[in-house]
Amino acid sequence: MKLAIDAMGGDHAPQAIIEGVEQALREYSDLKVTLFGDKEQIEQYIIQGDRVEIEHTDETISSDDSPVRAVRRKKNSSMVRAVQAVKDGQADACISAGNTGAYMTAGLLVVGRIKGIERPALSPMLPTLGGEGFLLLDVGANMDAKPSHLVQYGMMGSIYMQKVRGVAKPRVGLLNVGGEAGKGNDLTKQVYQQLQQTDLNFIGNVEARDLLNGAADVVVCDGFSGNLVLKSIEGTALSIFSLLKEELTSSLKNKLAAGVLKPSFKQIKMKLDYSEYGGAGLFGLNAPVIKAHGSSDARGIFSAVRQARTMHNENVVDLITDEIRSDKGELADG
Amino acid sequence: MKLAIDAMGGDHAPQAIIEGVEQALREYSDLKVTLFGDKEQIEQYIIQGDRVEIEHTDETISSDDSPVRAVRRKKNSSMVRAVQAVKDGQADACISAGNTGAYMTAGLLVVGRIKGIERPALSPMLPTLGGEGFLLLDVGANMDAKPSHLVQYGMMGSIYMQKVRGVAKPRVGLLNVGGEAGKGNDLTKQVYQQLQQTDLNFIGNVEARDLLNGAADVVVCDGFSGNLVLKSIEGTALSIFSLLKEELTSSLKNKLAAGVLKPSFKQIKMKLDYSEYGGAGLFGLNAPVIKAHGSSDARGIFSAVRQARTMHNENVVDLITDEIRSDKGELADG
Repeated sequence: MKLAIDAMGGDHAPQAIIEGVEQALREYSDLKVTLFGDKEQIEQYIIQGDRVEIEHTDETISSDDSPVRAVRRKKNSSMVRAVQAVKDGQADACISAGNTGAYMTAGLLVVGRIKGIERPALSPMLPTLGGEGFLLLDVGANMDAKPSHLVQYGMMGSIYMQKVRGVAKPRVGLLNVGGEAGKGNDLTKQVYQQLQQTDLNFIGNVEARDLLNGAADVVVCDGFSGNLVLKSIEGTALSIFSLLKEELTSSLKNKLAAGVLKPSFKQIKMKLDYSEYGGAGLFGLNAPVIKAHGSSDARGIFSAVRQARTMHNENVVDLITDEIRSDKGELADG
Repeated sequence: MKLAIDAMGGDHAPQAIIEGVEQALREYSDLKVTLFGDKEQIEQYIIQGDRVEIEHTDETISSDDSPVRAVRRKKNSSMVRAVQAVKDGQADACISAGNTGAYMTAGLLVVGRIKGIERPALSPMLPTLGGEGFLLLDVGANMDAKPSHLVQYGMMGSIYMQKVRGVAKPRVGLLNVGGEAGKGNDLTKQVYQQLQQTDLNFIGNVEARDLLNGAADVVVCDGFSGNLVLKSIEGTALSIFSLLKEELTSSLKNKLAAGVLKPSFKQIKMKLDYSEYGGAGLFGLNAPVIKAHGSSDARGIFSAVRQARTMHNENVVDLITDEIRSDKGELADG
């Protein structure tokens, strides 16, 4: 497969991006990559020229850029060029660790939605204590969602979890404020009813407090709620780790004891690290468009490449396209 | 002041409730208490009869009871009787650690809203790393909020933080998915505009990730979002502590090192424990109605009593009533 990669996006670009790509090229012999970015900088880090092309770009979208304006005006930015390569058929999928809003806009405007999908969903995998992880969608592509959007998220998430994560019959949960049917706001009450009518393995409401315990494989919500939950989890984990660090270095005695426990703390951080699962897919577009975390290291980029490759090889986009077509067909028949 | 207390609500009732009340009676000589519940059980734990009355009740609202039905049918439950005592002028405020939905319903139906307040808000204090804490409202009284509701939350929260927590000029933040104006969903975009028009110390949007860092003193949101954030924070903290426990007891070496660090872990847990701040106030009602956490121990109940007492002594309800009257007056004048 051919992958288009924004080499300039993210906190550790271009070095981490290129190192991650190198790892992936060593691992997957069928992989070809086009790196978009500053040629001179990229060449400082690149080792193997084999199966890698560099497309020089001289514009960069920063994290402060306004999404729509950036995409419209910076057509020669590494990000927009990578997305454009997918649209033009020069690549099967693209990856960026840059400005999330701009990347979502570029994906939507340039690659475009699958016919019948009303809204794309930004869909990261989040960690669970058991290690399986769960897919949360949407976390911010679509702030004011309608019930039908969330039903489509459930369908797309199920296909992804089956094909990419190997879960036979993904449990689809609705993010809500209580377990019982009838709980929640107008949106979730309607979605609950509609999800019950589908063929999905809908297991009902899921509370935010139970997410990390693996309460469901796919959790659907509006983009505003998903973003709040994602950032609450991140923020709380970071706060606790910073408290831990402060306490455990507060005396020599503590430092010595903490030294013994270092592997354990590392283990816990690893369990909560979701870069292993890849990036957040922008599901519902005509090709895999993967957003790697802004703070991605080489390992995070490698995971995103693996994810894009699996999505491509398992025809996830085609399966979503077929599913939505048959749904609409059924509706038309009925 | 006179306080009405549901002695039968919460995981550790009636023992923890009564122990907490005893502590408060020792601390505050101006405090009188009526305990509602099973007289025989209550008398097992009560030490000082002075300044305490017991009103025997023989119905209990459980955590599984449907709120509205429970409040309508179980008129002789300890919870409804405690709330009724406030309505009847036999108590100045009430406290329960029982079924949250039922208690909110009882507060709204029996004590009633302050004239001009459109919706009450369930308003807990949450911890911050610096120890000041912040007030989050609403966390579930009102699932589908309108912009004007959130503006009133900001006003009520400001008065509370000034009078009860001693913050001179409380910073009011709007819970949102990004820092810039114009971010968010339809609701938050409108609220942002409206909050700018008020006399409040509105500091703009606050992201979920920054809450525990003390980004604002008062954070307003719709009840659905607030509930998600509250439970995400709780769930993440619990998950990390359970991971820690598992790792730190996995070998003898770890157990020994963890033993040294025990005071540090305790310190961290204490920093994240918000029972010290009291319970969640149901703001916007005609009297202080305080919901203590279901898992409250004696200390948590003591804090809730202190909170109810301060709200009463500082005339928080009267101040909110005056403020909303002058707002409406201004609108009528304009």
